[in-house]
Order: sequence, then structure tokens, then C-alpha cells
Amino acid sequence: MGKVIFDISMSLDGFITGANQTPAEPLGDEGEHLHDWAFNSQHPFNRSLISESVSDTGAVICGRRTYDDSIPFWGPDGPTGAARLPLFIVTHHLPRKVPPDGVYTFVTDGIESALQQAKKAAGGKNISVMGGADIGQQYMLAGLVDELSIHLVPVLFGKGTPLFANSGETHIRLEPIQTVETPEAIHLRFRVAR
Amino acid sequence: MGKVIFDISMSLDGFITGANQTPAEPLGDEGEHLHDWAFNSQHPFNRSLISESVSDTGAVICGRRTYDDSIPFWGPDGPTGAARLPLFIVTHHLPRKVPPDGVYTFVTDGIESALQQAKKAAGGKNISVMGGADIGQQYMLAGLVDELSIHLVPVLFGKGTPLFANSGETHIRLEPIQTVETPEAIHLRFRVAR
Repeated sequence: MGKVIFDISMSLDGFITGANQTPAEPLGDEGEHLHDWAFNSQHPFNRSLISESVSDTGAVICGRRTYDDSIPFWGPDGPTGAARLPLFIVTHHLPRKVPPDGVYTFVTDGIESALQQAKKAAGGKNISVMGGADIGQQYMLAGLVDELSIHLVPVLFGKGTPLFANSGETHIRLEPIQTVETPEAIHLRFRVAR
Repeated sequence: MGKVIFDISMSLDGFITGANQTPAEPLGDEGEHLHDWAFNSQHPFNRSLISESVSDTGAVICGRRTYDDSIPFWGPDGPTGAARLPLFIVTHHLPRKVPPDGVYTFVTDGIESALQQAKKAAGGKNISVMGGADIGQQYMLAGLVDELSIHLVPVLFGKGTPLFANSGETHIRLEPIQTVETPEAIHLRFRVAR
């Protein structure tokens, strides 16, 4: 059975975007710097990480804000590009326009339903929860995440969208299972304790 | 010339104490868990890290809150115990009572003065800024920190004292120089870009 992995890039001070987000710059000021490891790195681990994690993954889940911010860049293929993995979007309302022949399924009856549908589509491979912060935290707090994969970017943003703003008072213990330092990001992988 | 190193333990979600701090439990709920790597670990790296960093260090700086919270536990020797490294406390007002024969110097004319005095005392060794959050951020924002040493503890606290709450909008770029994973903490060391 595949694992559920919450996988996201974060500045050392806990932000997943810079300040001053706009539709043209949904990642905010210098927010694209958070993804340099994926797109602008010569480090061999960084160059293979995305393709390897895509090949281990069968379906992806995100929140509506992530979808709305990203659809101008994604087109019909979604966040995994040519791999065209199915993307399940947790939302309250269906969007008016969706790209034809897209990988998108909109789920209006909650995170557990989205996970069930994603598992069915994933054929035993992993499910990647790609964010945003709110959806990731909902899955974490519901005890539905097996692993947390943080790409920790060596920068302090000071302001932006915090990853862990609403995670409540329940302490969640993690167990480090892999740590890889590269110049653009330190890749941290944790098992979530139950 | 010694380096100025801001050195502190932090949960993955950015807290340096748990919630509900009291005089008896200044680290808050389960906050002592943040220092398990130093006190309750069998991992060889953890067992040698404190003694090695103490031997490279010539003086320590902290804020007044850290001093007040810790003095019942420190006695006259301060945070480095038997090594008795001099500790410079940045404060607005002198305390009424100080342990006799203590390692403590109170500095009322600001962080730069405290650093100058610490450098004089350190005899060419490193200066450790041990926190709390506010003093560490003041030194970071003033451009006075050469290295940031974060002991990243694999737990989400949800609430507590945030390390990076007031760090403004200036992005501070860091360069990873050492990453060591242990079960109790992932030790991250960064050079601060100028």
C-alpha cells in the first residue's frame, strides 16, 4: 500500500511563499527561490529527486488556492507535467472553467474523500499532498500523513505564508528517516509518529 | 579571529519553547524535549557536540529573559557548567541579586557593546549567542552573526515561543556548511551571507 507524503518546500523560518503574493507572482517576493533546488540546481540529488519521487507517486492532492494560483502555469498536465499524474483538489465549490483534457478532479466532500479517491487512482503507489499549508495541516492533524518531506531552503524570509500557522497545541512527534544537504535545499524526510 | 555563532534548538515548526511557560518550567510543555539531543542521547555526535563547541568557544551572550529563566538551574557557573565560560547578559536594568563568584557580566548599553566585551574575553575563540529569540534576531538583523547553528528537533509543537517572529522583511540568505542527522535532532550549520 502506498504512503501518504506531505511534501513541500519551506524557508528555514517556516514560510512556503514570500510576502506580497500577487496573481502574477503567487509565490510572493523571491518565493521562486524556494524551488531553486528543483529547477535551477546542478546538484545530482536535486536533479534526480523530482523524477524519482514522481515515479514512486500515483496521485497528488492539493487545496483550491494552490490550484487557482498554479493553473495558469500548469495547463492541462498539472504539477507533474508530462507524467500527468491525477490531481485531486479539495474545494468547497467547483471552478467555472477547467482546462479540457486536464488531470484534475475536484472533491467537494472533504479531505478523507479526496484521499480515498486518490488512493483508488494511485494503484498502490504513494499519494503526495503538495499543499498548501492549510490542506497539509488538515491532513497532518487528522493523522492521515505517513511521512513529512520538507525541502528546507537556507533563507530567512521574515514574512510570507507560514506552513505551520494553525497546527494547534497537539505535539506531533517525527522520526528522521533521511537528511540530504544540497546548496539549494536540505531535504528532510520524517516518519510521522502515531 | 573567532566567529559569532547564533546557536539554538528549535522544533521543526520554529519554536524554541513549548506553550505554557512557567518559572518552574521555563521551556514550557515538553520544551525540555528540545534539548534531548544534548542531555538524553546515546548518539556519538550528540555526545561530543557540546564539549567540542564549548572548547571552541571563548564567551557566551544571552538576553535577560534567558538569564532570569535559567539562573535557578545554572548557579554561579552559567550555561557552560564546569567550563565556566564568561556569559554576557544584554539587559536594560541590573538584577538585584547575582550569585557570588558567578561568570556573569551585565551589559546595559546594547548588543554591540556586549559583543565587544565578549570578544575581548574570548581571546580569539568563538562567541556563542545562545538566545533567546529576541536577542538572536537583533544580532542577525544587525549583521553581526557569522554562522547560524540550528539544532532542528523532529517535533511539531504548534504553539510556543517562535524563534523567527520579528525578523522583518529583509531576506537573509544562508549557506549550508554542515548537516548531521541524529534521532534527537538534525544539526544544521549555515554561514550567514553578507
